[in-house]
Amino acid sequence: MALRLNSADADFDSAFETYVKCDRNGDADVSGVVREVVAKVRMEGMEAVKAYTAKFDQFALTDENLRVASDEIDQAEAACDTEDLKALDFAAERIRDYHEKQLPIDVRYTDDAGVTLGWRWTCVDAAGLYAPGGRAAYPSSVLMNAIPAKVAGVSRLAMVTPSPKGDMNPLVLAAAKRARVSEIYRIGGAQAIAALAYGAGPIKPVDVIVGPGNAFVAEAKRQVFGAVGIDSVAGPSEILVVADGKNDPQWIAADLLSQAEHDPSSQSVLITDDAAFADKAAAAVEEQLEASPRREIAQAAWNDNSAIIVVGSLNDAPELVNAIAPEHLELAVDDPEVMLKKIRHAGAIFLGRYAPEAVGDYVAGPDHVLPTARAARYASGLSVLDFMKRTSIIGCDEAALNKIGRQAARLADAEGLPAHAKSVRVRLKP
Amino acid sequence: MALRLNSADADFDSAFETYVKCDRNGDADVSGVVREVVAKVRMEGMEAVKAYTAKFDQFALTDENLRVASDEIDQAEAACDTEDLKALDFAAERIRDYHEKQLPIDVRYTDDAGVTLGWRWTCVDAAGLYAPGGRAAYPSSVLMNAIPAKVAGVSRLAMVTPSPKGDMNPLVLAAAKRARVSEIYRIGGAQAIAALAYGAGPIKPVDVIVGPGNAFVAEAKRQVFGAVGIDSVAGPSEILVVADGKNDPQWIAADLLSQAEHDPSSQSVLITDDAAFADKAAAAVEEQLEASPRREIAQAAWNDNSAIIVVGSLNDAPELVNAIAPEHLELAVDDPEVMLKKIRHAGAIFLGRYAPEAVGDYVAGPDHVLPTARAARYASGLSVLDFMKRTSIIGCDEAALNKIGRQAARLADAEGLPAHAKSVRVRLKP
Repeated sequence: MALRLNSADADFDSAFETYVKCDRNGDADVSGVVREVVAKVRMEGMEAVKAYTAKFDQFALTDENLRVASDEIDQAEAACDTEDLKALDFAAERIRDYHEKQLPIDVRYTDDAGVTLGWRWTCVDAAGLYAPGGRAAYPSSVLMNAIPAKVAGVSRLAMVTPSPKGDMNPLVLAAAKRARVSEIYRIGGAQAIAALAYGAGPIKPVDVIVGPGNAFVAEAKRQVFGAVGIDSVAGPSEILVVADGKNDPQWIAADLLSQAEHDPSSQSVLITDDAAFADKAAAAVEEQLEASPRREIAQAAWNDNSAIIVVGSLNDAPELVNAIAPEHLELAVDDPEVMLKKIRHAGAIFLGRYAPEAVGDYVAGPDHVLPTARAARYASGLSVLDFMKRTSIIGCDEAALNKIGRQAARLADAEGLPAHAKSVRVRLKP
Repeated sequence: MALRLNSADADFDSAFETYVKCDRNGDADVSGVVREVVAKVRMEGMEAVKAYTAKFDQFALTDENLRVASDEIDQAEAACDTEDLKALDFAAERIRDYHEKQLPIDVRYTDDAGVTLGWRWTCVDAAGLYAPGGRAAYPSSVLMNAIPAKVAGVSRLAMVTPSPKGDMNPLVLAAAKRARVSEIYRIGGAQAIAALAYGAGPIKPVDVIVGPGNAFVAEAKRQVFGAVGIDSVAGPSEILVVADGKNDPQWIAADLLSQAEHDPSSQSVLITDDAAFADKAAAAVEEQLEASPRREIAQAAWNDNSAIIVVGSLNDAPELVNAIAPEHLELAVDDPEVMLKKIRHAGAIFLGRYAPEAVGDYVAGPDHVLPTARAARYASGLSVLDFMKRTSIIGCDEAALNKIGRQAARLADAEGLPAHAKSVRVRLKP
């Protein structure tokens, strides 16, 4: 059973705050281990990567099997179900269409003082993509991470993915081919992140590293940040559904479980103004859990991290949503556009009763890499901008510099930076 | 004397690569100390902040003097030189004008399948601003960090600044007033970053922390990243000047020294196709160093980290620039627009002979918080976007879901996520 809260209860505010602040990531500090792995790969390169791969992935990495050959990728694709490949193509096209709309526009103008100003966007030279192996090997994640990079214009896209005992997921390789990933390496963990950041053997360093991973991968990304850019450090999935009593409880239960089935640390929250509907949805969750092939995971997430919150009015829902700042938010109400206006913090918002979160995971088009653990307060989902950067442009002719330069020199003087002032004054008319 | 390289030399490529990869940040690992400070502030709140402030700033922090009162700010402003205040106003207005052009646009559309798609930008609720004290107390930095936040629409802006022995820089307070900073606290170091991230005493937690600081501040920002957003971890300043032989060597020398005077770790680079001009510029640097009130700092930066690179043709300059990915780039050539097209990586680019970098530090308008240490390969300068985040919008009606839902469910099946598939299929027409 999930936690049950009612906004009419006297202790609601404190109970809600305690629930919101609960840390689902656990406190295991892997920074020491990761620091050692990163340092060793940086120093010893591919030899260290091979040693860690033997140890952690039980895979004998060689110069020959390090990189997945293009005929291996073609063979993997041929082994995939044709309908699965069609679905991948369908998803890839929709993801590409949406992300193309994100391409930013350069700006240039000359202001009243005659100063040329603006900015220009350019893409990074090379991006690294981490794709988890094993249970969390998701072809959809390969599309969602690689396509924005390609839309941004990145020419070199290097993917790393662990292959425990050498196994690779064929659909992951097919997705990488569709997303035009240029290099695929059979390595994973902190050692793969270090190899991407600093280079190792034939793997040249990249400029930015994206993609989900376990605690070691997340910590490695944090540690190499600065040497390269990173997307963000993603935590367990979350869904928050705001639903009135007119919804089908089976639909809403399925939505809540769609995130609960990801990981025992996942979080599902229902906010409703209808206590009877809350009961029905809770019963539907238990019923669907009984039949779930992933019951153990989903049940843990539901019992340990999830909540049903009954509010007096759905007008009270937006402020609770903003406090939770969920990764995914469904507004299963009559007029979702009205409620949308009151939401400030959420990774992605799904409007209406026919927009289950799972369409966003695969085919809607927007990226499914989204901020978790309340990071939607300050962070955005992955986009083409994660693979681009903005350069400021400043141009002056003699007249323009004479209009703005004296004030610059004055402030430089006030800050005790005489060479700054001098570099302006030498160019000014007397 | 700075390093001197010539692209005609046989060992140029390796010498250049060694120079580019040189780490000017030093290897001092302050992460252990910072981890302790952050944990203690998180646990004990203001009591820990007071203890660290007594220890590091020799300042007896009390509940009364923690926050700078508004009449103290007014008094500080009254003590400033009127011409300095006018220059601040001039700068603030230009910075605001430029950043207002960065405000992003929301997008909404309905695609061929009838799916409602788009995104919406919202600002963070609260931002924290670190302003260094002592030697590096720069009012211009307060403007450059605070104004983008206010333009983004952030209502609460909390500034922290250490006041060793209680002293504050009046012009810093005047700048904060102009930038409409809402709270100013007399604390600094890692303890101030922790207080902003987790809250301490009357200081409520913020959502994003920006602003420059020393190694402890930078490491603290890195460690609280995730609990809050951060701008970036800035290193020592850099300038790269590409200049032909038609420039005045005194002007170019002044530009090189304008960054060298920041810090002994700063870096200045000149790339020119004219060896005689290189000699003249080098001589002018030495001459200006003789007269510099900040000679010790500038000389160290020039001797230890700087370089003059002579190339056979200025056509070879852009690839060297891209490898260095400088924070500041001056193109002091006849047709800077032509060269601009070949530059991929730089924080800010200054066009022409009358655009010294220092105008960008103060009054041009673009932000002076820019990526250092080759981070311009993947990172942008500070902007209003650092205080905003993008929420994806996805809406489906029954018809739209029936057009895209089957493919979503198929991919969910392929990934072994049955509840994802179910949440879509329960809504589909049979």
